[in-house]
Order: sequence, then structure tokens, then C-alpha cells
Amino acid sequence: MQKLFVLIAGCCLVGVAAFGQANDGIRTYPSNWWVGMKHSTIQVIVRGEGVGKAKGVRVNYPGVTVADWRPAHNSHYLFLHLRIGAAARPGTVHIIMDGAGTVDFPLAARRSGNGTAYAQGITSADFIYLLMPDRWSNGDPSNDRVPGLRDQSLNRDSIFLRHGGDFQGILNHLDYLQQLGVTALWMTPVLENDMPDRTEHGYAFTDHYTIEPRLGGAEGYRRLSDALHARGMKLIQDAVYNHVGLYHWLVQDPPDTNWLHNWPTYTQTNYRSETVMDPYASAADHKLLVDGWFTQQMPDLNQDNPDLAAFLIQHAIWCVESFGVDGWRIDTYPYNSLPFMNRCNAALLEEYPKLTMFGECWSPDVAQQAYFARNSFDAAFKSNLPGVLDFQCLFNGIAAAVGDSSAQGGGVNRLTQTLGSDFLYQNPAANVIFLDNHDMTRWFSRMHEEVAAQKMGIEWLLTARGIPQLYYGTEVLMAGVDNPDGWVRLDFPGGWPGDKKNAFTGEALTEDEKSIQDVVKKLGQYRLHSSALHSGRMMQYVPKGSLYVYFRYDARQTVLCAMNTGNLPVKVDFSRFSERTKGFSQGVDVLTDQRYPLAQTAALPGRTMWVLELQ
Amino acid sequence: MQKLFVLIAGCCLVGVAAFGQANDGIRTYPSNWWVGMKHSTIQVIVRGEGVGKAKGVRVNYPGVTVADWRPAHNSHYLFLHLRIGAAARPGTVHIIMDGAGTVDFPLAARRSGNGTAYAQGITSADFIYLLMPDRWSNGDPSNDRVPGLRDQSLNRDSIFLRHGGDFQGILNHLDYLQQLGVTALWMTPVLENDMPDRTEHGYAFTDHYTIEPRLGGAEGYRRLSDALHARGMKLIQDAVYNHVGLYHWLVQDPPDTNWLHNWPTYTQTNYRSETVMDPYASAADHKLLVDGWFTQQMPDLNQDNPDLAAFLIQHAIWCVESFGVDGWRIDTYPYNSLPFMNRCNAALLEEYPKLTMFGECWSPDVAQQAYFARNSFDAAFKSNLPGVLDFQCLFNGIAAAVGDSSAQGGGVNRLTQTLGSDFLYQNPAANVIFLDNHDMTRWFSRMHEEVAAQKMGIEWLLTARGIPQLYYGTEVLMAGVDNPDGWVRLDFPGGWPGDKKNAFTGEALTEDEKSIQDVVKKLGQYRLHSSALHSGRMMQYVPKGSLYVYFRYDARQTVLCAMNTGNLPVKVDFSRFSERTKGFSQGVDVLTDQRYPLAQTAALPGRTMWVLELQ
Repeated sequence: MQKLFVLIAGCCLVGVAAFGQANDGIRTYPSNWWVGMKHSTIQVIVRGEGVGKAKGVRVNYPGVTVADWRPAHNSHYLFLHLRIGAAARPGTVHIIMDGAGTVDFPLAARRSGNGTAYAQGITSADFIYLLMPDRWSNGDPSNDRVPGLRDQSLNRDSIFLRHGGDFQGILNHLDYLQQLGVTALWMTPVLENDMPDRTEHGYAFTDHYTIEPRLGGAEGYRRLSDALHARGMKLIQDAVYNHVGLYHWLVQDPPDTNWLHNWPTYTQTNYRSETVMDPYASAADHKLLVDGWFTQQMPDLNQDNPDLAAFLIQHAIWCVESFGVDGWRIDTYPYNSLPFMNRCNAALLEEYPKLTMFGECWSPDVAQQAYFARNSFDAAFKSNLPGVLDFQCLFNGIAAAVGDSSAQGGGVNRLTQTLGSDFLYQNPAANVIFLDNHDMTRWFSRMHEEVAAQKMGIEWLLTARGIPQLYYGTEVLMAGVDNPDGWVRLDFPGGWPGDKKNAFTGEALTEDEKSIQDVVKKLGQYRLHSSALHSGRMMQYVPKGSLYVYFRYDARQTVLCAMNTGNLPVKVDFSRFSERTKGFSQGVDVLTDQRYPLAQTAALPGRTMWVLELQ
Repeated sequence: MQKLFVLIAGCCLVGVAAFGQANDGIRTYPSNWWVGMKHSTIQVIVRGEGVGKAKGVRVNYPGVTVADWRPAHNSHYLFLHLRIGAAARPGTVHIIMDGAGTVDFPLAARRSGNGTAYAQGITSADFIYLLMPDRWSNGDPSNDRVPGLRDQSLNRDSIFLRHGGDFQGILNHLDYLQQLGVTALWMTPVLENDMPDRTEHGYAFTDHYTIEPRLGGAEGYRRLSDALHARGMKLIQDAVYNHVGLYHWLVQDPPDTNWLHNWPTYTQTNYRSETVMDPYASAADHKLLVDGWFTQQMPDLNQDNPDLAAFLIQHAIWCVESFGVDGWRIDTYPYNSLPFMNRCNAALLEEYPKLTMFGECWSPDVAQQAYFARNSFDAAFKSNLPGVLDFQCLFNGIAAAVGDSSAQGGGVNRLTQTLGSDFLYQNPAANVIFLDNHDMTRWFSRMHEEVAAQKMGIEWLLTARGIPQLYYGTEVLMAGVDNPDGWVRLDFPGGWPGDKKNAFTGEALTEDEKSIQDVVKKLGQYRLHSSALHSGRMMQYVPKGSLYVYFRYDARQTVLCAMNTGNLPVKVDFSRFSERTKGFSQGVDVLTDQRYPLAQTAALPGRTMWVLELQ
């Protein structure tokens, strides 16, 4: 136990040392707060040897009062509520625990912009780039190994060991992201993962209030966020509310017996999100989904515990205010307590009305996916989640479409039908669409390494409804099958000194790789200034064989997208689309500038997609 | 035109002659009405040479008044509204058209039981048998050919020609249906189909007010209905609101130019029901669905024409009151004008509150299917249709489950997920579930003629949620692939004198055929008295590999159903189901009486389903 304290104090110095924590090994969660927040009465968890034996708790700070306090079941903890009044100024509050020492609690001035220059929300005008910070670029070799942390691995030859990528590596290449047209960065989790192994993905947090030092710590995270915002870009943080890493202090030294879902023997979730809305589901199956552990390394949190709930919610707000987060990606959404998630989302939105969040909802059907978002169901439970990661649009949508090269085009029908189910969402444009991510076979491999399929996929991604998300490396044809998942998490070429292939400079890229990177750049740049793609309406026509035609349009701009997934060329008769082509005479290919007169039919080659702006 | 009148008069004599129609070739639609109906102001369409030239319209009948009248665009027609007051008694109203003759309009006393002994509604306590009356049993060879009708074919060697089955054939075998546990009969349409060919299926009506004389006409239909009701059975009629046969008088001699959806050249529907709710659908695609013709032989009706709408709605009410219909199956539901369908359903329910209807909604997904029924969507359009023919439960449900014999059991997961989508319906129990019908490959062929699959399918059908519907012949392993559909419409064995194989007597049935017929009989009889299967709740457990376990239960009875779709035996550990097995000690196999103590695990062989009543 003592050892654990030492470690945490150690991390702290690397992580949020700026906040002046760690008085005699005593720590607070949150590590600080701000004056002038809507959330002005906060729960402070004080943690330290014997703090639970305090006889009283006082502060002596203008505008700040102790609303209540109590020792936790575990004598290492003491819970109190601080009321931070309107008159409070920034400074350090000394929390005095009678007979148990004192701890400093900083009250900061709010981040400049107070929820406008940050917490901006991610919309369909954005283009998200998802990367794994350990695997993208190593900008600071000095933090590749950090003394005191359990995982001291550093071996780029292994898909499961650390590779050394970090915030500085990303900072070095923000120009590249902007060349792609990217406007928002989503990294897999950046909180401390002091686990013995498999720390590369970041989902096994061990301390909510420490930013992973091997990535650059809180200071590095803040610098990255500032640099993004200075460029008009946005930051998405990856939230995990459902579980923590096994070595988290919540697990190793829990404040009470009911902070985790404990089972007589190790019991894993059944991963069956459909038990949430299935009217016939057994209570046992639903409990297993929600309370079972995600893996043996990731114990399940009991969000029905109000102290824990407050801890998680405050942490989310703390991250937004500390690091200028603009939007949240929420891990394993259906595995959480949904009433808790609604409270958590509402608390964030109360503090930051423009903030958005999208959940990972890997569900078997559109309706079951939509259940977790703001939807059009007249159901007892109403989710307040703005959008989801649209797995259905991938599996029963674009993958089905591009994956079917027959002339009959069964696949494009599945895509239109899946998009046609958008009546189930309140705002389908808030869904994030993607071709692949860190948990699944990469698009290029799914498409049997067909370059034409890669191009079609990307053209769809950047023109379809919703918020496009590109997984790092897809722009340069990175391949990989998710068996195991490490193979889809390989290093980005050029991210490490000495890499022969370099996606940033183009060095040693094949012609195919360059061609796909060019498609992303051209279409990404076009999208930056396209009102139709940002927020235009959509119209899709029933496919004819393998030909699928849809439009994005608003009062200023009309974009015609025509996809021929079949191997054979098809004739496009524009007169069929007169509802949308009326008043225009030609379509100009956004990628090639080729012009197609709308009065004539045109031949769309097999395995090809056109993106035409109408004039 | 004159020729057509002669034909119609000819049919009339065979059909509804009892109502004393046909004064000088003048006919009315409806052919009669009743006193004491809620629908007491009715539209009467008078049809006859020159009736449109009438100078006035009068009746002289106590309690009956002409609310208004007008000539139609086509001088063969005159429209009037008759108000049938509470004081009106049964008798014959003479409608006097000044200068254009008179026509008799009978006012009948209502069917005994006034909407309680008939119009009872079909519920999940029922078991529906679907048959094609031309193909089930020929009880009256004298009506096999009817002079004056266009189709004079009679050839059992052809899948497309008439075979001679009729109402009398069904009347002769009601004992058989009751042995199967059947409680409700659904026949493909029984209205006159005076088309030149392909009259065997019945969907190309040529007169709404004539019952097909080759089946036995109105008199035969009434006798069949009476016999069913005398046995406590129910009658379902097959409604087609969307289209008519090309030789219908509505097409050959339309009252006005806007009764049909006319196109410059023949234009077929796109059969894409998803364009109804797709928020991105083009108006052109939606119009094609709804206004395109079903086939060249089946023109599309314009239900937005209020006169036509009234005609269709009154016809439905007329059928219920004339023939004692208990429930409606509605053909090609999404192809109709949905506002019209809501009005039509509401009118029927206003007259007969217990009546039910289910629609043919062949949609690509559960949500898109549920859109057409009373659902849980907070959408602009709210359907009032009680239930649908549950194609999703077939294709993405039981066919996926039984069709997958792997140990992993991907198929049973699709079944549980599809049923788990029932939160989309207001009352999923109002859906009709089935293994096959007259439009699709028979279950036995779909299952590659595996007898074990036939047994599992039937056991599921008779225990799952919803209203089970068996297609004729499935109980004796009839096979057939729907290419073309005639192959799934073969004659029922034993329905014709001289048939070597006879499903009624069992003569020449193979052991397999007998065994499946026995399963239907035993389970059908069991279902007749099972409260759990009639109206019990359902609970389903997440499948383990190929093992899928679900329960039907109420306060009186609990039935455990365990399906192992895999080829290998699986162990069933009943302790997993303690939510439902608590208080019981054993399960008794409904088909074999075998007992399984719940305290022990049991081995469920591959490709086998158990239906166990708990004790």
C-alpha cells in the first residue's frame, strides 16, 4: 500500500505537478478546481494515510466553505463538499483536517475563452483524425521510459510493447494533419496507464488525475491542445467511465466496498449490448453486460455509487477545463449505467453547452445502436447522448457496398437502407462515420488490399452524412487484420527517426500510397470549405444495380456523388435526378476537374466513385 | 364495353345473386347495406348505361334519405350518399334516377352476433392456417370451370392454371384443420378474378362485390364462414387495397380519370418500401413505390381519390358484415397511401372494435417493418395497423437460426437480436410469424429438406411470441422453391379424388411426413390450452454457442424452449435460468413426455428443440 502511495506521488510530479499537490503524501481528487464554474459545489476526495481519522474539516478562505464532510469506510479516505462561492478568487485553499494534517487545494482562474474557444463541440463540419499516440510519432525520446512505472518495455518489434510515440511527435506534424483537411484530433486515452503491460492502447487508466508521462504528461497535453486551438483545430478526449485498469488506486485501495462490481470469481461481461433494450432479456444477462468486468485487467466500476459517480463527472469537467477538450468519445457506452451516463452528459452540457460527445455503441442493428443516442423512440429510457460511432454505417453500410463488386449491387442497397434508417435518430449528422479504427481490421485489409476500394471508401467518408473520422495510416494504405488487435496498431511511417518510409515527407511511399494520400488531401481540403458537405441535406436515390447516387446540398452548393461498386462500367443518366440537378448544367469532378454535362449520359467505370460539384 | 356488362351481370348471378341486384344491367356498389350500422351514411355508386344522365335521385323508404348525389365524369356512373336512419327497417330501397331508371338497394338485418360472434380479431391465442383455395381441395367439381369467365383453364399439370380447389373442399376437411390445432383460416383472395390467366392466386380482383364463382361464390363463402364459426374457428380475409386486376371495371370503365395512377408508359413500382421512411429518399423514388403498378396485370389505385377511398373502405366493412370476417391480412401494405390505410383501419375498428389486421410489410430491417405498424417511434406519421407479417422474424430470425448448424451459433444470435428489437412495436404479439407462404421458397426447401430443421421450425413457430401461421403442406413436408412462385403453390395431397397420397387420411405419407404432421398436431393441440403460449410473457437468454433457451410464462404456466441448432449435442445447465425455473423441479417434454430434472444438467442433441412444461 505504502509502495503505491510512493508511486502515485512520483507520477504526480511528472503529471500534474503544476498544481502543487502532494502534501505529506496526501492527495485530493479533483486535484484542483476553478472559480466561476457552474459546478461550484464539488466533492473533494482526500486520500492519505489516516485522513479518515480526522475529527473535523475546516477551510479558511474567502468565499469557500465546507458544505459537509465524512470519513470513508476505508480510513485512507475522507469525503467533503466544498462550496466555492461567487466571491472566491484564485489561490490555494488549505484544507485542515483536525488531527489528520492539511492539504492544499488550488483554485485556478478559468481557462481563457470560458467554454467558447474550447469545449466547442465536434460537428459534421469537422474531420476527425484518430491516432494512437504511442504509435504515431516519437517527438521526445526522453520520455520513452519513465522510471517508477511498471511497464518499462520499449520495443518497436512487438505489437504489444511501447513504441515511444508522444504528444511532441504530434505537435511536430500538425501541418501534416492540416494538409489532410483534418480539423479535430482524437487520441486513444492519454491518462496514466501504470499497468505492467499492454499500456500502448491507454484504456486501462490507473489514475484519472495524471496524464500519461510517457506521452508528455499534463504539460505536454496542454501544449498540444493549445497548438491545436491556435490553428483553429479541436481536441477530442477518449473517456472511459465503465472500467479502470487493475492497478488503479480505486481497485488497489478502494474507498468503500461498493465502488467496484465485485463477483465471487472473475466474471466477464457478455458483451451483449442488446440486452439493454431487449424486452425479453433476463435480468441475469443484463447484469452480466453492465456489471461484468471488461477484461481481467479492467475491473468494472459501480456508477450507481453516488460518490464514484461524482468523481467521474467531476473528472470529465476537470479535463475540459484543464486541457480545453472540445468533444468526447465515450468508450464501451452500453456497458455503463445509462442513467449515470445521462447525468454525466447533462453535467458536462450544463457547464459547456456547445460540447458534444459520441459513444462507442457496437450494436447488432441500427435501432439497437440508435437506442443509445438521442433517438426518435417513445421509450421509457431517453438517452441524451448526441451521437454514436456509427458501426452500422460501416458494417451494414459502406463495407457492404464497396465489398460487393457484383453488377446486382446488393451491397449498395444495404448502404442506402442503413442510411435510410436515420429516421431513428434525432440528429444523424452527430454520428461519427469511419472506415476503421484501432479495434478492427483496417479498411485496406477488409477490402483485400484493393486500391480502388480504398479510394471509394475515403470518397464516401468525406461526403456522407455525419462526422468523418479517419484512422491514422488509412491515408497511406496501412493494412492489418485485427487478430490480434496489435496488428492494426502498427507505427505510422515516418514517425520515428530513421524510418525509411515517411508519410509526412512522402519519402518511399509507393505510387498507390501517394495516390490515396492525395485523395484525402484534395477532398479534405475541398471539404474544409464545402457548405453542402458541412451541413447540407442529403438525398439518395434507390440504387440501380451497382450504381448508387446521392446528393449533399444546401442553398449555396450541390454535390453529386455517384458510386459504381460493380466491376463493369455503368451509364449514369442524370435526368433521373432532376429533383436535384434542376438549374445546373454540368458536374465538375472535385478530384480531377473533369466536366460532365448533365444533359448527356456519362459512363462511370467499375469500382469508381465520382464527387461532382454541380454548376 | 357492353360485353363487359354482360359478363358482370353473369358473374353477379353466380356471386351475390342473393341480394337481388341487376335491374336492367344497373348495379350498385356496395351491392347492399344494413340497418343499425355505425357507418349509416354510405356512398352508393350506381353503374349502368346512361345513369349519369339522371336529372334527380330519390328514394321513398322510411328512415332512408338521399344526402346528396352527382353524376360521375363517366356517364356510366352516378354517385350518391344514402343516409340510413335509426328508424330504417330491413327491406329493399328503390333508388329512382329521374330519366335513368331505377335500381334496387337491399337493406339487410345485421349478421347475428353484431360484431361479437364475428369480427373477433385474431390474437396470439390463435393458430392460422394459410391456404390457396384453388390448390387445397376440390370439393365441388361442378364449379371448376364457370362459363363466361375469361380463364377456362383447368389443368393440374400446370403450376399456373386452375386446379379446381374450392370452399367445399375446405368445408369437407375442417376436422383436419382442428386436429392440427388450427383456429383461424386465411385464404388467398376469394374475390372474383375474371382475368385471362394466372387466376389461381386471387390477387387480381376484377370485381369487389363478387365472390369468385369457381370457389363457390358468395353462398359458398358464407357457408364456410358459418361452419368455421360454429366450430369456434375464425376467418381471415386477404385484402388488396393497392391494386386491382387489369380487367376490373375500375380499369376497363373508370368512373373518372383519377381513379388509377396513370403513367405515360407502363411504369412498375420499384418495390422499395424503405423509401417511405428514408429521410433522404427522393420524391421520385417514393412516388414510384406508391404509384407505380404492381405488375402489368395489376394497375395501381389512387387512394387519394376520396370516392375511391370510400369505395374501398365500405367494401371492407361490407365483407365483414356479409361473411363474418374476423381479421384482415392486408396485401403489399407499404405500397398503399398510408394516410388512406390509417383511415381504412380506423373505419373498420370504429365499426368492429375487436377486429384486427396485419399487413404484408416485406422490409429490409425491423425498424423499417415496425414503421408500418403501431410502433414506439415518435414520428410524424403514426400507423394504426395492429401488426405485421413478421418477415424479419423469418429472414433475420428463425431461418438464420435453424439455417446455421455451426457450433458457434451465429444464427441463434440473429434470432434473439431480431426478437430483442420488439421494443420498436407497441404490441409485438400482434405480429404474425411464419416459416413460409405462397410467395416464398417453402421452409423445407429453404432448409435443404432436412426433417430435423422442419421440426425445429414448427416447434419455434408454435411457441414463439406472436400469432403463428402455418402455410398449407408445411405439416407434411411439402417442398418448393419460389422460382417461379408456382412451385410453392402445388396441390395439397389428398385434396383431389384419386390422389395417391392423402394428408387427411395419412395414406401413403412417408414416416417423415407423418412425424412432422404429428408434431403439428401434438403441439397445436397443446397450444390450444396453453395460457403461457397464448398470452404469456417471454424471456430469452443470450445464446451460448448454438444453444438458445427462451421461456413463455404467466402466473399459471411456464414453458421452457431449448433449441440446439448446432450439429453437436450441448449441455443444458438449468441453473442459469433460475429467474424462471425457481419453484419448479422438472421439465416435461410436451411431445414425448420425457422428464428432465432441473437440478441436473441435460444433454440436448444436435439439431433438436425441446418444449418443456415446468412442474
